Amino acid sequence: MARNKYPEETVNLIIETATRLFIEKGYEHTSIQDIINNLGGLSKGAIYHHFRSKEEILVAVTNRGAEESNKMIFEIRNRTDLTGKEKLKKLLMYSINRPVQDEIFTAAPNIGSSPALVSSILIGTIEYTTPEYVLPIIEQGIEDGSIQTEYPEELAELIMLVGNIWLNSMIFDDTPEKIYRKCVMYDKMLRAFGLDVLDESVFERFHKLTELYQKNK
Amino acid sequence: MARNKYPEETVNLIIETATRLFIEKGYEHTSIQDIINNLGGLSKGAIYHHFRSKEEILVAVTNRGAEESNKMIFEIRNRTDLTGKEKLKKLLMYSINRPVQDEIFTAAPNIGSSPALVSSILIGTIEYTTPEYVLPIIEQGIEDGSIQTEYPEELAELIMLVGNIWLNSMIFDDTPEKIYRKCVMYDKMLRAFGLDVLDESVFERFHKLTELYQKNK
Repeated sequence: MARNKYPEETVNLIIETATRLFIEKGYEHTSIQDIINNLGGLSKGAIYHHFRSKEEILVAVTNRGAEESNKMIFEIRNRTDLTGKEKLKKLLMYSINRPVQDEIFTAAPNIGSSPALVSSILIGTIEYTTPEYVLPIIEQGIEDGSIQTEYPEELAELIMLVGNIWLNSMIFDDTPEKIYRKCVMYDKMLRAFGLDVLDESVFERFHKLTELYQKNK
Repeated sequence: MARNKYPEETVNLIIETATRLFIEKGYEHTSIQDIINNLGGLSKGAIYHHFRSKEEILVAVTNRGAEESNKMIFEIRNRTDLTGKEKLKKLLMYSINRPVQDEIFTAAPNIGSSPALVSSILIGTIEYTTPEYVLPIIEQGIEDGSIQTEYPEELAELIMLVGNIWLNSMIFDDTPEKIYRKCVMYDKMLRAFGLDVLDESVFERFHKLTELYQKNK
């Protein structure tokens, strides 16, 4: 395949191949060479032309997986038949239940051992995901009276810092039992801010995903 | 200076020189070459023998600064005249008020732009600082009745995740006003867990340190 003639197809091929291998063999057990071997003649140079490291491929794989769900999240954000608090509940439920989570936790990257991944998830959560998806919902909730706070930006950040970073068992290598206890504390924290938006099914889902991770890592 | 004859003295000299330059010129504006130029004839090879990067020197500088205060924190932890909750309050007050904080915020490293630093602070906070300093105090508080929780480990982690990561304005490049609002939310969260351990002076101290950072970055 010519390297620059259809760059998008090349990138797609790399992402699809890497996704399949990460799920089959696990992220930690897949090498760049494994990916090259499955690309049907694409050279090492071609892959490094698009991605500088395996970590960058993982970021592309998870972003691809997130694209579909981002559409859903935008839809939730823009619905007019729900209060802000109801939207926040839907957002959290949907985020943890979307199928791409099963794929990621099955690929089971040991995120905590990769400074580049830890940093990009933490900074990306606070600087991109929070203002884009969570803050607008909090602001709607304030307007419709379903959420009470004088600090919408800070509340949105806290929700995501704890829910997206601390509750990510691939960062801190948590056991399923530990993640369950973290969920209980997250729920307590959210309720302290008037946000009764989690239920037992969310705790169980976190538990199950962490089991997947611990089995496959 | 012979490179391996007195390795500890060499490391001390590098750390002291780097500390002085980071404070005078700012971390971002100090190069490895600047440090070498101030080491009185020590070669580039000698510095790289001990430190692989400027980030590693910064970690050594902050660790050195932390050594003195760690002694104090151990003393707080081991006192017998205070309840667990009183110790937690002393710990948080002391941590933010110790003089090394002025030095760090004056050196003003843009931590958020360094994946290695972001990651080591996050992982180090949860895996080292929390079990070493905060968890024992929470457990004492449970025993003496001053702290109520069934989840001591998770509570200790939440306290540190929010207090040490989210409230670090050098990670998220916060303004003094934003840090003040974050402090108010931190206080609300802690109170929800029965921990009335912060006061206005802490908010003001965070505000002042963040001013230092924004002025010097």
